[in-house]
Amino acid sequence: MSVAGGDLKAGPGRFARRLLREWRLRGWPLRDERMLVAVSGGADSTALLLALEELRRVGLLGVEVVAAHLDHGLRGECGADDARWVEGLARVYGFECVVGRASVSERAREGRDNLEQAARRARYEFLAGAARECGASAVLVAHTLDDQAETVMLRLLRGSGADGLGGMMHERPLEAGGEVSLRRPLLTWARRADTEGYCRERGVEFRSDAMNDDERFARVRVRRKLLPLLSTFNPRAAEALARTASLLREESAALDELAAALLEVARAQLDTESEEEEVKTSEAVWVAVLARAAPALRRRALRLWLARARGNLRRLSRAHLHGVERLLEGERGGRVAELPGGSRVERRRGLLHFHPGSETSGGDES
Amino acid sequence: MSVAGGDLKAGPGRFARRLLREWRLRGWPLRDERMLVAVSGGADSTALLLALEELRRVGLLGVEVVAAHLDHGLRGECGADDARWVEGLARVYGFECVVGRASVSERAREGRDNLEQAARRARYEFLAGAARECGASAVLVAHTLDDQAETVMLRLLRGSGADGLGGMMHERPLEAGGEVSLRRPLLTWARRADTEGYCRERGVEFRSDAMNDDERFARVRVRRKLLPLLSTFNPRAAEALARTASLLREESAALDELAAALLEVARAQLDTESEEEEVKTSEAVWVAVLARAAPALRRRALRLWLARARGNLRRLSRAHLHGVERLLEGERGGRVAELPGGSRVERRRGLLHFHPGSETSGGDES
Repeated sequence: MSVAGGDLKAGPGRFARRLLREWRLRGWPLRDERMLVAVSGGADSTALLLALEELRRVGLLGVEVVAAHLDHGLRGECGADDARWVEGLARVYGFECVVGRASVSERAREGRDNLEQAARRARYEFLAGAARECGASAVLVAHTLDDQAETVMLRLLRGSGADGLGGMMHERPLEAGGEVSLRRPLLTWARRADTEGYCRERGVEFRSDAMNDDERFARVRVRRKLLPLLSTFNPRAAEALARTASLLREESAALDELAAALLEVARAQLDTESEEEEVKTSEAVWVAVLARAAPALRRRALRLWLARARGNLRRLSRAHLHGVERLLEGERGGRVAELPGGSRVERRRGLLHFHPGSETSGGDES
Repeated sequence: MSVAGGDLKAGPGRFARRLLREWRLRGWPLRDERMLVAVSGGADSTALLLALEELRRVGLLGVEVVAAHLDHGLRGECGADDARWVEGLARVYGFECVVGRASVSERAREGRDNLEQAARRARYEFLAGAARECGASAVLVAHTLDDQAETVMLRLLRGSGADGLGGMMHERPLEAGGEVSLRRPLLTWARRADTEGYCRERGVEFRSDAMNDDERFARVRVRRKLLPLLSTFNPRAAEALARTASLLREESAALDELAAALLEVARAQLDTESEEEEVKTSEAVWVAVLARAAPALRRRALRLWLARARGNLRRLSRAHLHGVERLLEGERGGRVAELPGGSRVERRRGLLHFHPGSETSGGDES
């Protein structure tokens, strides 16, 4: 690896300039912030780290960057090699580096996650912990527009609505209610060819992950087979999918906002009109208010209500939610909808009541 | 062809029963209605006609059915053969039949439509005219769940938002503002294998259309290549796509309703507060009202406003709409957005004004 790269006199190259444009568009601080960059050693995250280095070197970005790498324990010696490689990369370019290690396959065996899910969960836990330790206020991950297109197709194959098809967000809290921000500075513009090209331009040979070639993973088959076929219909199919995701994310956000307002109306009437303590504490909402709303709105309002009343939406399927929705239809839809873990929703005197079950949080069915 | 089919004593068969269930779910009249059924002679429309015959024969449906067939003039003698075949089918099963003829390739050469679009336009014009002549209040078309899945994929490949991805509706007015209803009784449940199987069961050899095999058409490639690949990820991929479409259609409907309400607020304030006749007649809306709304909502409200002010949305691209949206951002977004045909939107004293251009309706650029 060599520190020099690009034409230093001419300012940053195309890839770094494009990153800076995104940075400004999102209003992210240009200096006085400490952030973690998740670096697997693949082309995407290596390109992100190199572009941050380039922007810092030419003085256009003054943020403090710490590289972070998790060895998932899935690749034996290769995993340790990757970790050493990332540490070396960080050292050469003058970045601090944090390395962690997890036993993902063990976690997958113990919990109900599959390998992909367990790896993802371990990674995000590691990043959250590392961010706290380093005092970082943001974590950067290198998902590209191709990753977004793959996500949209995977969700479409499951029959998701607008919230699922909205794909990944360019920024969100790393943990629910937490203060560390998760940012995806490559998501809306960088193609995989761009990150690979930029690494080559900088003379850095990125690592390749065997998991990225394993066609047992649906995501790998989407990448290798489905997206190339989509490109025969529209050479800019990945961009089209990303644009769809972005439109749907906005539509979903608008509906969420309105659903929250609808839920407030359904609950506010209760607070003023009901005298029964029992009703107040059982988290009830007015049937008549919800029944009048458009189906898409009341579905979201009910989901929000259940999330608050239950504490989460875990194990709540489309069928469960549909059962609760049907209670709004009056007698035809029944009086009680059972939910997993023994909790249930009951329609009584014009109200939906939530009754918590005996479920201990994080039940252990596999 | 033979009139007998299915076990008459046991009531209607599976396919006809499923059709009747959909019919009831939609609340369509079971008798005393006269309707046109578009019959190309392919498996889907033949199955629809046969199932209507079966339901009438066993007395479960009392509606009057007229078969309608358009020869697009694209297949020479084959087209005339198809028309004769459909007439024969209708005669055997005791239905009236209307046959029309169009010169679609000529229309495509003259207008700006491609062959598929011209054929579609000719078909719907024929159906509207035939419905008027027959005194039919509904037109039935035989789009299946597979057609819906294909439509969703084609729209996704163009980067559509929720309204496009919502696909086809199970019912809508045949013409904007018209009284004849277009219904798709097979859309939400029938697979192509079901319609073919039912035709075979009834002993009717449906026709096949060479256009359905022509891989120059994107829809044919989606059917032949893309959907089979999607099925390797999820055997019920077509159903998943149709479910997504249905969810997005509901979300889109909720947003449209709210956008119309937002537009009313933006205009109502003008009616009460503005004294200027000129402002009233130039179709103005308050910037401040729209700017406060969620992006997805104000985009729909603006599109609705432009559709009303211009008379239609013809030739209005995403970029044009984006230009109008940017006017809401204040100075940064400029003061004027030019629209095709010389019309434009101007931001002045806190209002957006629509200025019609000199465009004659249906301009002749190709």
